[in-house]
Amino acid sequence: MTRRSYPLSRVYGLLEPGPVVLLTTSHKGLMNVMTQSWHTMMEFEPPLVGCVIGGNSLSFEALRATHECVISIPTAELADKVVAVGNSSGRKIDKFHAFGLTPQQGSLVAAPLIAECHANLECRVIDTRMVNRYSFFVLEVVKAWIDPTIREPRTLHHRGRGVFMTSGETIKLPSRMK
Amino acid sequence: MTRRSYPLSRVYGLLEPGPVVLLTTSHKGLMNVMTQSWHTMMEFEPPLVGCVIGGNSLSFEALRATHECVISIPTAELADKVVAVGNSSGRKIDKFHAFGLTPQQGSLVAAPLIAECHANLECRVIDTRMVNRYSFFVLEVVKAWIDPTIREPRTLHHRGRGVFMTSGETIKLPSRMK
Repeated sequence: MTRRSYPLSRVYGLLEPGPVVLLTTSHKGLMNVMTQSWHTMMEFEPPLVGCVIGGNSLSFEALRATHECVISIPTAELADKVVAVGNSSGRKIDKFHAFGLTPQQGSLVAAPLIAECHANLECRVIDTRMVNRYSFFVLEVVKAWIDPTIREPRTLHHRGRGVFMTSGETIKLPSRMK
Repeated sequence: MTRRSYPLSRVYGLLEPGPVVLLTTSHKGLMNVMTQSWHTMMEFEPPLVGCVIGGNSLSFEALRATHECVISIPTAELADKVVAVGNSSGRKIDKFHAFGLTPQQGSLVAAPLIAECHANLECRVIDTRMVNRYSFFVLEVVKAWIDPTIREPRTLHHRGRGVFMTSGETIKLPSRMK
């Protein structure tokens, strides 16, 4: 991965269209990764992201204990790996090794970046008040990386039950919205 | 719009891929509509949706007062109207009239459905504890409608600053995820 630091003010444009993401954690010397689609932007800058992490998962335990994770955004070429990650548990296997994903050291959190992903967002948990009721964490993106060689990433978007849509045509309209 | 009731258990598949939505309200005899992309699924069934509604908007006021709204999902053919709705305020104009959107009576909430949208979700606010800090409302979808004549809706996804991606190719993978 060619890696370049990315302005935090532009992170919302990566997550707002709703891509499937991989979320990594590192806890007690154990790295893990899960597949995730239930996330939303909550603030532009600093970028805040709300996300639901299933309460039975190893990732939930790690996130609650360490308050750190990385959100990695895969392109459609990684679809098979994304599904394999979603179909398995870090309690049983090392998913990085099993599915050929390459962990890389980030700069501000212990959770690993994923070299194969076009964008990696280092995050810290800043609010856990909705965790008990909804398994909903509020994250602040503290450092963002993109692969500048990928201009129009073809992202994956889950429509349920293994049906995915990949991003299609791009259009530009005279919006005054951010 | 040909309208058919849609199972609540399948609503997540409409919102999970991150489409731009229109959100309608009705308050003090005034209907309004806004453009919105900051939403996430929070539970499968009953379907819960978290969404951020800017605190200065007429929609925010209406939602906080009435605790009801409709999330309408437009297809890419409506892109110009979606942007026009986002660029204007219901304090100044009747956006339904100005942009040729047709309000329709729903069944359980006073906020209108939008006839031109392929899916309409009647929602009630069930949790406002994150409103003061994040303008974040938790909604329960209480009734869902789809247009059964539209098989693979080409949805709009905002990448920021007026750049939109439209949904592309659909792929099916052997996922055990819901």
